Amino acid sequence: MPRLRLALCQTDPAVGDLAGNAEAVVRWTRRAAEAGAHLVALPEMALTGYPVEDLALRGSFVEASRAALVDLAARLEREGLGGVPVVVGYLGRSGSAYHATDRPAGSPQNCAAVLHHGRVVSRFAKHYLPNHGVFDEYRWFSPGNQLPVVSLHGVDVALAICQDIWQDGGRVAATGEAGAGLLLVINGSPYERGRGEVRLDLVRRRAAEAGCPLAYVNLVGGQDELVFDGQSIVVSAEGEVLARAPQFEEALLLADLDLPAASDRTDGLVLGGGLQLVRTELGGGTNGRPAEPLAPQIAEPLTDEAEVYAALVEGTRAYVRKNGFGSVLIGLSGGIDSALVAAIAVDAIGAANVHCVSMPSRYSSQHSRDDAAELARRTGLHFRTVPIAPMFDAYMGALGLTGLAEENLQSRLRGTLLMAISNQEGHIVLAPGNKSELAVGYSTLYGDSVGAYGPIKDVYKSLVLRLARWRNEVAEERGEVPPIPENTLDKPPSAELRPDQVDTDSLPDYDLLDTVLDAYIEDDQGRDAIVAAGFDPAVVDRVVRLVDTAEFKRRQYPPGPRISRKGFGRDRRLPITNGWRRG
Amino acid sequence: MPRLRLALCQTDPAVGDLAGNAEAVVRWTRRAAEAGAHLVALPEMALTGYPVEDLALRGSFVEASRAALVDLAARLEREGLGGVPVVVGYLGRSGSAYHATDRPAGSPQNCAAVLHHGRVVSRFAKHYLPNHGVFDEYRWFSPGNQLPVVSLHGVDVALAICQDIWQDGGRVAATGEAGAGLLLVINGSPYERGRGEVRLDLVRRRAAEAGCPLAYVNLVGGQDELVFDGQSIVVSAEGEVLARAPQFEEALLLADLDLPAASDRTDGLVLGGGLQLVRTELGGGTNGRPAEPLAPQIAEPLTDEAEVYAALVEGTRAYVRKNGFGSVLIGLSGGIDSALVAAIAVDAIGAANVHCVSMPSRYSSQHSRDDAAELARRTGLHFRTVPIAPMFDAYMGALGLTGLAEENLQSRLRGTLLMAISNQEGHIVLAPGNKSELAVGYSTLYGDSVGAYGPIKDVYKSLVLRLARWRNEVAEERGEVPPIPENTLDKPPSAELRPDQVDTDSLPDYDLLDTVLDAYIEDDQGRDAIVAAGFDPAVVDRVVRLVDTAEFKRRQYPPGPRISRKGFGRDRRLPITNGWRRG
Repeated sequence: MPRLRLALCQTDPAVGDLAGNAEAVVRWTRRAAEAGAHLVALPEMALTGYPVEDLALRGSFVEASRAALVDLAARLEREGLGGVPVVVGYLGRSGSAYHATDRPAGSPQNCAAVLHHGRVVSRFAKHYLPNHGVFDEYRWFSPGNQLPVVSLHGVDVALAICQDIWQDGGRVAATGEAGAGLLLVINGSPYERGRGEVRLDLVRRRAAEAGCPLAYVNLVGGQDELVFDGQSIVVSAEGEVLARAPQFEEALLLADLDLPAASDRTDGLVLGGGLQLVRTELGGGTNGRPAEPLAPQIAEPLTDEAEVYAALVEGTRAYVRKNGFGSVLIGLSGGIDSALVAAIAVDAIGAANVHCVSMPSRYSSQHSRDDAAELARRTGLHFRTVPIAPMFDAYMGALGLTGLAEENLQSRLRGTLLMAISNQEGHIVLAPGNKSELAVGYSTLYGDSVGAYGPIKDVYKSLVLRLARWRNEVAEERGEVPPIPENTLDKPPSAELRPDQVDTDSLPDYDLLDTVLDAYIEDDQGRDAIVAAGFDPAVVDRVVRLVDTAEFKRRQYPPGPRISRKGFGRDRRLPITNGWRRG
Repeated sequence: MPRLRLALCQTDPAVGDLAGNAEAVVRWTRRAAEAGAHLVALPEMALTGYPVEDLALRGSFVEASRAALVDLAARLEREGLGGVPVVVGYLGRSGSAYHATDRPAGSPQNCAAVLHHGRVVSRFAKHYLPNHGVFDEYRWFSPGNQLPVVSLHGVDVALAICQDIWQDGGRVAATGEAGAGLLLVINGSPYERGRGEVRLDLVRRRAAEAGCPLAYVNLVGGQDELVFDGQSIVVSAEGEVLARAPQFEEALLLADLDLPAASDRTDGLVLGGGLQLVRTELGGGTNGRPAEPLAPQIAEPLTDEAEVYAALVEGTRAYVRKNGFGSVLIGLSGGIDSALVAAIAVDAIGAANVHCVSMPSRYSSQHSRDDAAELARRTGLHFRTVPIAPMFDAYMGALGLTGLAEENLQSRLRGTLLMAISNQEGHIVLAPGNKSELAVGYSTLYGDSVGAYGPIKDVYKSLVLRLARWRNEVAEERGEVPPIPENTLDKPPSAELRPDQVDTDSLPDYDLLDTVLDAYIEDDQGRDAIVAAGFDPAVVDRVVRLVDTAEFKRRQYPPGPRISRKGFGRDRRLPITNGWRRG
């Protein structure tokens, strides 16, 4: 039984940065080669970054990707790395027309290639294209119809891309039919809370169906609303976890696999589902097996809170850094939302790069000012105070506002103040809104919604509180000062835009609200179904109406890391003008 | 040869308003029946409105649509209208699974039904699903695989939905194979500049391919970013225009058509492309032909400027009205952009519902203040002046801003002022940004980008000027006062955020800029191709860089009527974090 040392490179490319991403492929391949790998794999579209969205429709970008791939193969050879085959995702073009979506030959495709001895020895396109949630792949790509198999060191390795294993049939079934010894899948699978379990179940099932081990390499890092958690994994045909990479960090996952010898299935064979077997011989003979396999590298998945918090930190760090900024600005109210956002920012880019400003009004309580200052003291971030009374008086003198107009004015004065400091000093602003608020429209356009990124926009208020407590506990376990003041954790939430205001004046208790929101948003349950589950019809009607009418505000909100099935980004597209008001 | 009186109802449904839309179907059917129609057709998804976007994924909405359809059939019968068959689009469910996108049986479909004698006598789903530009139909729907044919009064009428005729083959070819006497297509085809010509060419070609006349009924009105221009049309198999409805207004288009007698193709026959012929007999015998056909109703298409201007007016009216507002608020600078927006608003909802405010700063010229007041005087809209000096001084006193931060502050103070008046008085704010500005990021987040709708966000600056001049000329032809002051038309564009500033300080001349933008955005040409066409490489590099880095601002901009192939809405989806910087 041949033994193959497989290297899965869990990398963090930047969309569009072909030069930087190619550099990373070389760097990781060198590490893998130095570790004795026989086969190296990088994630889906690791050369272009993922998802490239409508950049895929720009012909000059497709050509640049194709050229970068050829250059990369040559460069690997030049640098003495040509001997180890590298599987890497890139943006390519189809050779034939695709009728279902009316795409001519030459249309873009989500491709992968095998690079070997300075050349591109195999190219293939994703077979199944996801077109739900955050995915629009029928918009960008036409599908491929091959089962690529590379034969090296006496083993047949079938190749697939991400969605290819999420749907029944296709390359998984074809891998079994072809009698391959390993199914290697390159992925760009975005993080969702608890996704690791789902993926593990999936790869186990698919390995069993393919009748061979399955190796799954995933992206890591952040791209706009998406976060990638890595957690690359290798399972045996029997479902045993043979290797697993950590979450939220770049990693080289090595696994020594004892694999069945190559079959004699013929190149060109047409398998079930119409997939054509395309075999590429890479040679290498039956390799001299290493005497002892490497000790298995099996990282443990994070706990729920640790995983979600890490996703928020990673999303924030990636967005700030990849957009070329070095520092952030946050309005600190003394409340739990901005406190958690500040803690995330400190963990993402360091307290020295986090600037906060307290902007009290006449309605701000003394404890709010104190709590904001206390958080700054505990974390060491930069802190200043700018009262908004002079600006408020100038507007009130000119306009004589009342009620909601007066409340929103305070929030907008703070937004304008943050942007002024941002423009003057070069920080980008982080918006503190949570998912419960955004769901019901309990935020002020151009006020607390101001910002380039919203680190907790996909986090319900009840989870905000859990994460804040968890972060403090972690600090205590480490013997560090908990970042978030106890008073911030304990006081009732309030926007402090009028005297003695608390959130529960106008909203249900957050635990109740979040449960109803979860049913309505995540589960897409209708009003009647939620009422039938035992909730007060008046509350449900009110929540449904608020959610339906807040679409405009949500669409104007900045992006933020997505952690749930349905965030408020491109994964959820609803009309603003919407006459449907019954759930 | 039987003669059929066909009624195409070019209607303006509101997305989600099932009750209101059903009411409209009854109202238009009554008009058609009173005019002696034998067959009535309403547009694609006229019962739900179009596009419903992710409402399609909400099971309770799909069920409500299906129930509304059954109710509608019964109601037509109750109101004495059951005798005339009505073809109407709705949101339905598939009977079978669709493997390509992994959808189970019961998944949503873009459907149409034929209602007759109180019952739903035929249902079918769109065969080709568009998934480009503004369309995401593989996200929402699974395709249908029938060729529905209704036989009435001795004629076979084949039915299709929108994209079914934009792709080769499919229902058009099958209609020819089935020997139908008429191909009736219901549509939700969004407006683009010059789209009428494209559609006319298409329906002529498809009529020839089907070998029979083709009737095309389209939506009219506005839905968020989309505008529908109607322009329903009937052409003969030889391509002659037999009837055409006007643009941008609801209309009943009647046409008496002499059609070939029904063939004897069998129900259940499988035609080319795998489409199954499903025939529904509606009876009616060979009808007593009306002695004289109606005189043909053939509306003339509007000129380029008239068409674009009407689209902007219609989009604005629909957005304001369908979202339940009665009045708008606009910041009037005295410049051309806000002047055109004000003229559009006055034409859309009447001067009595248009409120404007001049918000001069120390850098505002006297002519700007005068020009704003003059526009108000000419149009009769509500006008007030609120200087921003007190607010400006309050911020500058606290922060001591300079440069861009000081410039942006002025714009944001105005945004906050507009929102304060909006919240106090209940108007919605219109944003004055044009496409050239948005393309290069020459606008201020939370400043001049404030608003619920941007009437000219898809109009390049050079076209803004042409439309303004055109609108004045129309007024002169009608003997009315031209709304836009001549000085506003003639002066060099300036943001007036610092002394003696003009736009050409920081941007190329708009005619040059717009030409480069058009190549880069509308035509997706790369940097090298644009340079090769003869443009200054330094200008092209600069423009490309500006466009690529302004994605965040554009995504935060409010929706506005789309008039081009690529607006800045959901038809163009680019990453914010984008390392691609070479076109």
